[in-house]
Amino acid sequence: MTNTIDLNADLGESYGPFKKGNDEQIIPLISSANIACGFHAGDYLVMDQAIQLCREHGTGIGAHPAYQDIMGFGRRHMVYSYDEIEALITYQIGALYAFCIRHGVTLNHVKPHGALYNDAAKDKQLSEAIVNAIYAIDPKLKVMGLSGSLLTQVAEAKGMTAIHEVFADRNYNDDGTLVSRTLDNAMIENTEQAIDHVLQMVTEGTVTTVTGNKMPLKADSICVHGDGAHALQFVEQISDALKKEGVFVKTI
Amino acid sequence: MTNTIDLNADLGESYGPFKKGNDEQIIPLISSANIACGFHAGDYLVMDQAIQLCREHGTGIGAHPAYQDIMGFGRRHMVYSYDEIEALITYQIGALYAFCIRHGVTLNHVKPHGALYNDAAKDKQLSEAIVNAIYAIDPKLKVMGLSGSLLTQVAEAKGMTAIHEVFADRNYNDDGTLVSRTLDNAMIENTEQAIDHVLQMVTEGTVTTVTGNKMPLKADSICVHGDGAHALQFVEQISDALKKEGVFVKTI
Amino acid sequence: MTNTIDLNADLGESYGPFKKGNDEQIIPLISSANIACGFHAGDYLVMDQAIQLCREHGTGIGAHPAYQDIMGFGRRHMVYSYDEIEALITYQIGALYAFCIRHGVTLNHVKPHGALYNDAAKDKQLSEAIVNAIYAIDPKLKVMGLSGSLLTQVAEAKGMTAIHEVFADRNYNDDGTLVSRTLDNAMIENTEQAIDHVLQMVTEGTVTTVTGNKMPLKADSICVHGDGAHALQFVEQISDALKKEGVFVKTI
Amino acid sequence: MTNTIDLNADLGESYGPFKKGNDEQIIPLISSANIACGFHAGDYLVMDQAIQLCREHGTGIGAHPAYQDIMGFGRRHMVYSYDEIEALITYQIGALYAFCIRHGVTLNHVKPHGALYNDAAKDKQLSEAIVNAIYAIDPKLKVMGLSGSLLTQVAEAKGMTAIHEVFADRNYNDDGTLVSRTLDNAMIENTEQAIDHVLQMVTEGTVTTVTGNKMPLKADSICVHGDGAHALQFVEQISDALKKEGVFVKTI
Repeated sequence: MTNTIDLNADLGESYGPFKKGNDEQIIPLISSANIACGFHAGDYLVMDQAIQLCREHGTGIGAHPAYQDIMGFGRRHMVYSYDEIEALITYQIGALYAFCIRHGVTLNHVKPHGALYNDAAKDKQLSEAIVNAIYAIDPKLKVMGLSGSLLTQVAEAKGMTAIHEVFADRNYNDDGTLVSRTLDNAMIENTEQAIDHVLQMVTEGTVTTVTGNKMPLKADSICVHGDGAHALQFVEQISDALKKEGVFVKTI
Repeated sequence: MTNTIDLNADLGESYGPFKKGNDEQIIPLISSANIACGFHAGDYLVMDQAIQLCREHGTGIGAHPAYQDIMGFGRRHMVYSYDEIEALITYQIGALYAFCIRHGVTLNHVKPHGALYNDAAKDKQLSEAIVNAIYAIDPKLKVMGLSGSLLTQVAEAKGMTAIHEVFADRNYNDDGTLVSRTLDNAMIENTEQAIDHVLQMVTEGTVTTVTGNKMPLKADSICVHGDGAHALQFVEQISDALKKEGVFVKTI
Repeated sequence: MTNTIDLNADLGESYGPFKKGNDEQIIPLISSANIACGFHAGDYLVMDQAIQLCREHGTGIGAHPAYQDIMGFGRRHMVYSYDEIEALITYQIGALYAFCIRHGVTLNHVKPHGALYNDAAKDKQLSEAIVNAIYAIDPKLKVMGLSGSLLTQVAEAKGMTAIHEVFADRNYNDDGTLVSRTLDNAMIENTEQAIDHVLQMVTEGTVTTVTGNKMPLKADSICVHGDGAHALQFVEQISDALKKEGVFVKTI
Repeated sequence: MTNTIDLNADLGESYGPFKKGNDEQIIPLISSANIACGFHAGDYLVMDQAIQLCREHGTGIGAHPAYQDIMGFGRRHMVYSYDEIEALITYQIGALYAFCIRHGVTLNHVKPHGALYNDAAKDKQLSEAIVNAIYAIDPKLKVMGLSGSLLTQVAEAKGMTAIHEVFADRNYNDDGTLVSRTLDNAMIENTEQAIDHVLQMVTEGTVTTVTGNKMPLKADSICVHGDGAHALQFVEQISDALKKEGVFVKTI
């Protein structure tokens, strides 16, 4: 059990003339921002603005690298060699890092996005390519991944800090993976249930899976959504519920 | 007069399945490589390989940021706000910087590419946006620009080191600008003439313009071409001719 | 004076994961849709859906080709050779044409987008390149351009039908050009004034310019905005006001 | 047995400033050109030029649509919905169709490229999406696919003409699929063997597989490479060898 918890959201997802998300409103409410680096969303101007917002609100900054796939928003599995993955990750982190230096803030963590996140969770070599790329830039960078996944294991084996991420509105299978979005029971739609789900993960370190089993689950950071009025309200509700349990939102 | 001179070439211009230039052959012959950062050419894998080649051969490394225009190879004038320019430059330098960190080498300079280079040479505010972006990342980065241009002036006024670049195969106007490529006498096609042109700039610090005037011109670095068998041979001829005059090729 | 008028809007501007505009709501209200073709906005799926909506509502279909510039939304001046312009226009019209064939509807017109529209209005050779490309695909395609501009003149000289477009919310200079968006009085912000402005153009065939002069202006089609709740309401107000004057909205 | 055979090559693969292949030299030697449509290679100007070369030399014209993946040259498996596939194919064929209309030539066939080609060969629903898209544009368009594959079966079931394609330099498995490029014996490196391989397929309608079995294989068109001096020479050798057997190269 912990008395602080990190709340993270995916941000900086606008792209040129296309606006997406509510960076101005969500950044003050969360403790970690995963900022898109231009490969699935985001551009240089959006990144610059997102970093400035994070600095203003003391929000922890993470790079959110992805497969190079604007049209598919980085959510499609794609095939890369491990050399390509290392280079792809290096490029994106470097681009965001420069904005951190420019605005005098620290890059705290790296969280792979979308299909890269899901693929890494169960592919050890892919996880190693990702972790090697991050390590080569700065071994102190934290690696955010699905709680208990191969990505977090590989990062820890390398001596790095892994941030075990859990999802406020997603159901879990018995093996600790998320129920696939293609299934009906993937999402926890009910707000109260989602809050209970979060409280259990944060205060007990367990999750009740779709089959009703209670299993241990490390919860360092809770992923919340960055767009929609509902999202903002939900973040406030989660924060309040946690506070009542004596758990405060804080960057890891 | 100097007894060393820098030879630079634009490199890392392959793009995914499209090969361009002879990085492996030209990098050992030059002292500074301007590496494309993905906006007019180059990609993460090409950048990774170019940096490794530079490390292997002790070649000085420069970022070669450009307008975002793959189809036009960054050679078309485009309109950006100065905020966009700062962000555009920051993104590209950051991406390349990460590969330098990854391979334990130093980023030495930044040279804007194509239309951005030409636009900056005569636009003070654009030059300031570029220089501010570079300075914010690292004030020790050198700024390579057209010899005597506004870009070099702005960099020096900011207390940074400017690298005054001259061109081996281009004729000059009386105002120190290059004769436009749209004119017949833009290029010095004859190799001997090009070598004499270089020797005069390097050893005398002057250039004979298209009107026959001899005018002062600071020559810190000579730009040579990176592709074509002729290019490689020319670099060797230039190096030999310089050596005979007691001038050695060395990164600035 | 006419008793029908065309109402057009720029549509199909979503892009992969990025939603833009309200195609479903605006298409039923207008008589001509200018559909983005993937170069400044729009993608194959968005185009497919936009064409189906137009078929459903009997809305006239136009291709809305642009410079290749997603990040700048096609609003930045760019330099192309006239050969490139012809090919660029051909590609985009062809792509949209195929969706028309697929859904059994007719492609009615072509309207260049953004900077291409503005550049063509005052560049005869550029207009000729655009018109030649359209003519080669189908001489019966109508060419929509700024009322009285070089683009419409070139189309008519080629024997094609030009659609003279006017703007509901833009002020005009004495030479028939639009007041630049960089100036304070570019836009007519007041709805009543905009409606009066439209009625005068449509029923009298004149416009009162920013200097107070009344000058003739051919109005075949009125451009309205496709996004925002206000836009939808405005289209209904314009349609009602025109109807009261006995002018009905109809595809040209 | 047939006394004419089609020779096809993938062409129009240059991209903006990046040159690839020898369109000028290979187009006169082949009877069918598969022209890239901008999604894995090719651009509007390259397409325009390729179509003009085909017209000049009477070469049959095919669209060569692909997954949208310039960086991976369309060779990576990607996940699309079938609606997206239909729209993706429609867009690309339409773009090329417009250049055919522009230059007064006929679009003869469509051949999916790379991973789309390979995926379609064994995925019936994907083949149906491709075939539906082609059929909706023009039912007379021929569908080129791996000989005997699901794509050719689906096209024929729809009443369309399939072009059964065979490969001059690739070994076959017993099930009629190509030996994977990841295996050592994928390619027939020896020119004489490749020619014998082609002659057997064309004149006997059989192929000897990697296990030594002789099996029937329909050969309507032989795929040859479009780049490299060796490729050009090989096309001439193949053509001569076929001519000696009384088989002439001709568009299907």
